[in-house]
Amino acid sequence: MRANVKSLNQARQIRQVFGPVMDRLDQVENFFEREFSRAEPMVREVATYVLASGGKRLRPALVLLVSRMLGYHGERDVRYAAVVEMIHTATLIHDDIIDGSDLRRGHATANTRWGNQTSVLVGDWLYTRTMDLCLELGDVDVMRLLTTATLRMTEGEILADRIRGRIDVDEGIYMDISQRKTAELFAAACALPALFQPATLHLTERLLAFGRSVGVSFQLVDDMLDFTAARADLGKPVMADLREGRVTLPIILLLPRLDPRTRRRLGEVVSSGTFEAISETEVLEMVRTSGVLDEVRRRARDFAARAAHEAESFPKGSERDSLLLASEILLDRGM
Amino acid sequence: MRANVKSLNQARQIRQVFGPVMDRLDQVENFFEREFSRAEPMVREVATYVLASGGKRLRPALVLLVSRMLGYHGERDVRYAAVVEMIHTATLIHDDIIDGSDLRRGHATANTRWGNQTSVLVGDWLYTRTMDLCLELGDVDVMRLLTTATLRMTEGEILADRIRGRIDVDEGIYMDISQRKTAELFAAACALPALFQPATLHLTERLLAFGRSVGVSFQLVDDMLDFTAARADLGKPVMADLREGRVTLPIILLLPRLDPRTRRRLGEVVSSGTFEAISETEVLEMVRTSGVLDEVRRRARDFAARAAHEAESFPKGSERDSLLLASEILLDRGM
Repeated sequence: MRANVKSLNQARQIRQVFGPVMDRLDQVENFFEREFSRAEPMVREVATYVLASGGKRLRPALVLLVSRMLGYHGERDVRYAAVVEMIHTATLIHDDIIDGSDLRRGHATANTRWGNQTSVLVGDWLYTRTMDLCLELGDVDVMRLLTTATLRMTEGEILADRIRGRIDVDEGIYMDISQRKTAELFAAACALPALFQPATLHLTERLLAFGRSVGVSFQLVDDMLDFTAARADLGKPVMADLREGRVTLPIILLLPRLDPRTRRRLGEVVSSGTFEAISETEVLEMVRTSGVLDEVRRRARDFAARAAHEAESFPKGSERDSLLLASEILLDRGM
Repeated sequence: MRANVKSLNQARQIRQVFGPVMDRLDQVENFFEREFSRAEPMVREVATYVLASGGKRLRPALVLLVSRMLGYHGERDVRYAAVVEMIHTATLIHDDIIDGSDLRRGHATANTRWGNQTSVLVGDWLYTRTMDLCLELGDVDVMRLLTTATLRMTEGEILADRIRGRIDVDEGIYMDISQRKTAELFAAACALPALFQPATLHLTERLLAFGRSVGVSFQLVDDMLDFTAARADLGKPVMADLREGRVTLPIILLLPRLDPRTRRRLGEVVSSGTFEAISETEVLEMVRTSGVLDEVRRRARDFAARAAHEAESFPKGSERDSLLLASEILLDRGM
């Protein structure tokens, strides 16, 4: 019951955030429709399925809000909001191949429905098509920003893959991965509207910093939710990360507080992906009572505060308020 | 023995083709070395492995030969020769995930060694990095050419994936797939040097046509070799295509010559990927004695002739001779 009330509140807040750009978000959906109506049927089917499966259009909203905040009046905002979501979608599709996951946002993943073959290809198609969409308008700088973000995201995934199954994950590596995997695309989404007009170019760095902080905060909360949320809210099993051999900040912070034997047993969970050496309930209990979640929360809040600090230099108005509210709501998921 | 003599002859011929650009091909290898020495270790390991596993550097050689033929003296030829090979390598890595293959050029495939996870990511990294390498020099037109080729290649793979396991493949669809999957990158490799200098821009279309014809000819011969070559020459099992449910031109041409019962049994091979309904030897025998391979050969020769016709408009000299020789040698593999 409590969760439902919370969801409703969140839904209301999200509408509030998106309010100033609701009309543009509809245009983004139209853009997808036009784009995929022309595409190969298999691309259309898979991409439409993944795009329709409950994504909150957070990254497009960031592009649109910043564009409006910077007084942009052309059509690039909608195009690049769509492009950013297409890149995000391609990442999700390829990630699910990687994890062998079969649930994403409570739905069957693309690779479960269409197989690895199709999923790899549709992901490839989406990545490549986004480059085309940048080239059509000759927006080389936007393209450079997105290519760099994509490259760093991929490197983040490769790093994450390398340490999978290992318990001895350094905190610095974890932060580096979180930044690359998640925060880079947030940063690109926030900064690319600065490139639409010469007069706003000077804001690029600050917008990048803002997006990066929001992104890290978002990722920290996500990693925490893996231990606190109910399955229905997550749309995937609790402790999915541990099951996939992924050690996140709560576990990194927990380890030094454990006796060697428990540490070793937890290590077996991470390397085997099963809760044989130590039960699910026991792990959850340890994480929830140890105080590490408060520490993660505190850090997420710090990053949100950094984002707010960056935003002080942005043009005042309802769009800036919405950006700050967005950052707050994302943080609030874990509070 | 015969095969060995043939290989030796081919090796000599290939040296002859590459002769005019041997020094530049070395530079391409240096480029890879520099590029991957800076990359994430896992990217370096996988990419170096796949790049080193016996590729003939055909596509880079095309870029270099055309560049020299057009009198280009800068450094872009080496960079884009490397870029084209990186795109090709990314395709190979992702293709192997798709097919579940475990052999490529006689070596274990990347996904067998490192798993689907790493393979997807390293492929993604290569694709994205090639875009970066274009952006570094601001070569938007080159990028457009390569993005279009990549998009069409991916669409070709998606189409191929859709008809997998089906025996009733239309010849038109087969040709469309061959053109997209293989010929588009050959075409881009041949045409992109025309974009290096304003004076050679007018040759773009003819170079595209040349590359496309060479590419289709190459693919036709490849599909034929799947029925004629020994395992050692192919570096993969004979009739690998059929085993993977892929119907190619020899089978398409064979079907109308079969009685309904044999046709149905062959259909079971394609849908099951096993030779239970009809033995391997029987299928090979049918293909080899039916005359369909002569027909495929004839068509491959037609495409090589078209390429030669296009080449008449190219600047005369040893590079043009080498390009024509390359087309001949590729054809000769199947003679």
